[in-house]
Amino acid sequence: MEVKSLNNLIKAISKLPGLGPRSARRIVLYLIKNLRTVAVPLAESINVVANEVKVCEVCGNIDMNQICSICTNSERDQETLCIIEDVTDLWAIERANFYKGVYHVLGGTLSALDGRTPETLNFDSLKGRIANSNVREVIIATNATLEGQTTAFYIVDILKQFNLKISRLAHGIPMGGELDYIDEGTLALALKMRHDF
Amino acid sequence: MEVKSLNNLIKAISKLPGLGPRSARRIVLYLIKNLRTVAVPLAESINVVANEVKVCEVCGNIDMNQICSICTNSERDQETLCIIEDVTDLWAIERANFYKGVYHVLGGTLSALDGRTPETLNFDSLKGRIANSNVREVIIATNATLEGQTTAFYIVDILKQFNLKISRLAHGIPMGGELDYIDEGTLALALKMRHDF
Repeated sequence: MEVKSLNNLIKAISKLPGLGPRSARRIVLYLIKNLRTVAVPLAESINVVANEVKVCEVCGNIDMNQICSICTNSERDQETLCIIEDVTDLWAIERANFYKGVYHVLGGTLSALDGRTPETLNFDSLKGRIANSNVREVIIATNATLEGQTTAFYIVDILKQFNLKISRLAHGIPMGGELDYIDEGTLALALKMRHDF
Repeated sequence: MEVKSLNNLIKAISKLPGLGPRSARRIVLYLIKNLRTVAVPLAESINVVANEVKVCEVCGNIDMNQICSICTNSERDQETLCIIEDVTDLWAIERANFYKGVYHVLGGTLSALDGRTPETLNFDSLKGRIANSNVREVIIATNATLEGQTTAFYIVDILKQFNLKISRLAHGIPMGGELDYIDEGTLALALKMRHDF
């Protein structure tokens, strides 16, 4: 492994989320074995994305335009705003193909431990947006983690000043979930939040 | 996720070994968030490797020259040849910093199930190399998997015609291994292959 460019590439890939030195080496070897069919098109693909992609000025979504296709889509309900942690969550909700409102990407969660204060997230733009538009309902869809829940409570707090309906995603047994395999916390919550048939 | 170039990139990355759609989406989002610092340098790095890297004509190692730095290194013992499945195994042995001989990369293992016949691996170049050089010892370092062992037996078979010392890596308890956590097969093998203090 004395080839410097190779080491550089392995190092770069091992720093991507979810990867480490071992998986990076496997990927680099695969790239080398498929130089013309995989590696070169991949580099090209990254460059195309790097040149095309923009962050939506309104909601923080990723798109090819300054204002994303969801924000500009007149068929979407501009009165319902779903607040999410990250763009991957937006993608997940879009894949479910149920929600027809618009989004607001926070860019993460609050975390005292990791030094993520309210100033580091898109709360100012959120408040500005709600003050200057006709949003009537806000759906808080942060993750069901400690940080996600903390962030949710903070959002409720800063949105109190507006006259809004504020809801959050339901928690409970996932579809297809077998009770025997569900963690106790979820099960307790599902019992507590039970509703009439 | 209506941006076509984004979908293309996610698709390309999800096809890399060890990755899937979910990890690809995470990586792409990370690339987009770090366009100038990560994504563009990564594409550049892939292109540099694609242009620089060559497969050694002698041993199958990956290097910047037609004949790799291990094969041309006069300080390495050219009489000892270590046969490995893939370049990652060569890298692993080099990291151990113990072996001073040269290598021969097979490019995989035999597998009747997956249609990997002897013709698909670098056996011809191996035989030619041993016939035309002063190799005295061959160390078979294929993986301790079923395919690796099958391949090892095949190598022993085709090298019988040469007057060579043929050895293989020792199997047994790994360094730091606790007996309670070692699988029964390894433990049985370690007992069977026990040697005097």
